[in-house]
Order: sequence, then structure tokens, then C-alpha cells
Amino acid sequence: MKKANKKSNAAIIVIGNEILSGRTQDVNVVTIANWLNTLGVKLDEVRVIPDIEKTIINTINGVRKKFKYVFTTGGIGQTHDDITSKSIAKAFNVKYCYHAEAYKLLEIYYKKRNFNIGRKKMAKMPRNAHLIYNPSSAAPGFFIKNVYCLPGVPSILRSMLGGLNNKIAGGSKILSRTLSLRTVESEISIPLEKTQKKFKNLEIGSYPFFKQGKIGVSLVIRSKNLKLIEKCLKSIVKFVQKKKIKIIMNK
Amino acid sequence: MKKANKKSNAAIIVIGNEILSGRTQDVNVVTIANWLNTLGVKLDEVRVIPDIEKTIINTINGVRKKFKYVFTTGGIGQTHDDITSKSIAKAFNVKYCYHAEAYKLLEIYYKKRNFNIGRKKMAKMPRNAHLIYNPSSAAPGFFIKNVYCLPGVPSILRSMLGGLNNKIAGGSKILSRTLSLRTVESEISIPLEKTQKKFKNLEIGSYPFFKQGKIGVSLVIRSKNLKLIEKCLKSIVKFVQKKKIKIIMNK
Repeated sequence: MKKANKKSNAAIIVIGNEILSGRTQDVNVVTIANWLNTLGVKLDEVRVIPDIEKTIINTINGVRKKFKYVFTTGGIGQTHDDITSKSIAKAFNVKYCYHAEAYKLLEIYYKKRNFNIGRKKMAKMPRNAHLIYNPSSAAPGFFIKNVYCLPGVPSILRSMLGGLNNKIAGGSKILSRTLSLRTVESEISIPLEKTQKKFKNLEIGSYPFFKQGKIGVSLVIRSKNLKLIEKCLKSIVKFVQKKKIKIIMNK
Repeated sequence: MKKANKKSNAAIIVIGNEILSGRTQDVNVVTIANWLNTLGVKLDEVRVIPDIEKTIINTINGVRKKFKYVFTTGGIGQTHDDITSKSIAKAFNVKYCYHAEAYKLLEIYYKKRNFNIGRKKMAKMPRNAHLIYNPSSAAPGFFIKNVYCLPGVPSILRSMLGGLNNKIAGGSKILSRTLSLRTVESEISIPLEKTQKKFKNLEIGSYPFFKQGKIGVSLVIRSKNLKLIEKCLKSIVKFVQKKKIKIIMNK
């Protein structure tokens, strides 16, 4: 099922008014991004959109053609504002109906007598969707073609990602090395730009930081090719030492 | 300059590989969203995109026609990966050049002898851009038409928003009330859906939570009309009390 692919990219669609209203700090993007790194899938875009059916349908139909994998978070619960599953069914133009296995899983979890209509809603999904199992609270996510629908509650989402490992065909793992320097960006911006031009097939990010009253710059080098990263790192360390800049961390 | 407007909506474009790589947890969206609430501007979409010129240009030119205000974060620093200002200039098809006032501000801040070429880059922006002043570290942001470019460092971004208050023409302030209940969603999903159908001009969000081993549900009612919120709240409290559900918080 798992097949390596050179262009393994992904987008995340965060569906939720609570993020746009500023009420809730999203933490799922970081979780999914780091998980994708381990699978060799590059996260290329994130969108946060409101719980509006038309917006969900249009966004999904736009991005699912552009990216190999699309992950949605949020809106698969049991209340009126949980409209992700129904909207995804509409986006794919398939029926929105009970998934037999999901229904059974939830019936067992809640016991028959407590399996009320609100909870039953969580067994409804696009016809022929495949389940993403939920080891923490039973209610499964699902995927249909390249669109993977996950819940919004961070702890539950985290517990479900592992079950997807063998469904996602990544490329080589994306590797990174970080070099933290006791300097300011203006001290290194010119040789750094030259280095980036020399090493076209990797990405050098420069991030100034302020920590415990001290300033510094972290350089993050990312590539699928470890040898290239190390060669680039060597070249940076060379000009850094020449400038007598202190290296705080190199890992 | 400030003029009330009924359709005051906004989008945020987070520009930064460090967010997509999972290295950095974005916190600027929550900051901007809450600030926009106080101005009566509704945040309708967020996108996170990589430091790629073509992507920035296409995204900006797509969203600036759809939303009244567009805010970008990140990429206005001094290193090679800071390409927001140049890309915005290209999106608007104007020259990317030194802004006289920004140049002066930075020259004073860094003193003439330390105002090197890296730092000078931060004075370059699209021709005729207006400055967004930076009370913490001098380097200004800018706006051109309806696109407002802010830095990525959270503390600096926060310090700059206040200076924009009289530039943003919001509508009425978006108000919200939260009712937290000691219950599960399935207990309330049906009457809640009925309530939402009855009150079409407000938004009811339902968010289950787990806190110190106890579960509950927070209902968030949002609208520009306080009377409507209170009427809706009354109607929810009525069915909640009938069901003998404990109210943990009502504020």
C-alpha cells in the first residue's frame, strides 16, 4: 500500500470558528507537521476556514487537486456546528450516511442504551469512506481518496496519527540541523545569502531569538540529503569562526 | 480616516517555512484575531504559506480582492529568506526601494556606523508604502492599499498593532458570551441545534473540554447584538436547567 513518491506534499485545512475568533490557540498544525516530517511528506500550505458548508466544499475541492494529501481538523463531533463530514460528502458528491463499522464501534463504546442520536451522528460520513481509528474515545475519523479528516481535540488527534503511518506514502525523510549563534542577523546576512545561493537544493532559515535577556540567531538547514546539509553546515561554520562568532548550539 | 463598515472582514497570511516545518508554533494568529475582535473586524481566513516568491505573489493577489483587510506576518527581516517586502512589491507591480522615513528611523536606531547593508534591507519596501511603526525595535512594517505587513516575532508584532487602531475601519464590535456546562455534547446537541436554528443571526459554538480529570462543554455565543446573545443564552439556560445540568461558568 505504501509507495515512495518524490512529490509527497500536503495541506492542512483547519475547520473551526474557534480558531478564527481567537478563542482557541491551534496546536494541531505543529503536531501534524512534525509527524509528516517523519514520513517524508512536506507540508506546503495551511488554511484556517470557518464552519460554513460552502467554504468547506470549495476549499476542499480546490486543495485536493493541488496536494497529494489533505488533512482536515475539526468539525467531526456531534453538535450542530460539526459539519465537516457532511460537507466533505458534498464536495465528493457522494451520499452522507451511516458507516456500518463506525456505527458498531460507537455502539460498543457507549453501550446500546446510551448510544443516542447525538452520538450516532459521529458514525455518519461520506459513503465508502475508510475509517481512521481512534484509540482514545472511539469516534473514528475517516478518509476518502486523498482527504483525511481528523478531530479538533489535540490529544485525540495525536492518538490517531500513528494509525495512518502505513497509509501515507512519503518520500525520503526531511532532515534538519540547527546552528545557534551568539550574533545578530546583520552580522551574517551577506555570507549566509551567498551560502544559500551555493546550496540551491536545501533550505536555510534564519531565526533571531531573545532568550533570558540574550539575543542570538538560529540557522535551520533542511533537506532530504544529509551529506548536503553537512557540507553546507561546514561552509557556514567556516565564515562564523572567521568572524569570531560564538556557536551556542550545533545539532 | 476611520469609517464604519458593515462588511469588515480580514484574512491573515502567515509567511514562513518555520511554521510549515513544525519548528515554530504560531501564536500571532490568536493575537491578531483578538485585536480584530476589539475593532469589529471579522477574521474569515488564515493561510500559512512558504517563503516562495511566486506563492506569496499569487496568494496576496488572490486574497486582497476577497477581503477588506489582509495582514501578513513574517519575512520582513534582513536575511536572504526574508522576501515578503519584495514579493508584495511585485504583487502590486510597484518598485521595491528604500523608504526615506524607514531609512532614517533605522539609521538613528542603529547609529550611522552600525547601519550596515543587512539592516538597510529592512528600509526597503514597495514604493509609496505607508509605515507601521515599531516601538520595540525600530524596523517598521508597512501597508500598501489593504495589505498590512507585520513581522513574525510575536512580541514585536504585538507592540505594533496598537499603532494601526485608527487605520482599520471596523464595524460594531463582535461580542461573545460563554456558558460552561458539566455535561457531554450528546446530552444537549438536539435542543442546541434547535436554538441555533431559532437564532439565525448569531453563532453558537460547542466545545467539549477535559480539565483536571473532569469533562464539560463550553458553549460560545457570538454576535454583534448583545440583546440577541442574551435572549439566546436565556433560551439555552432554560433547557439546561430542565435537564438538571450544572452550569460551571456563565460570563
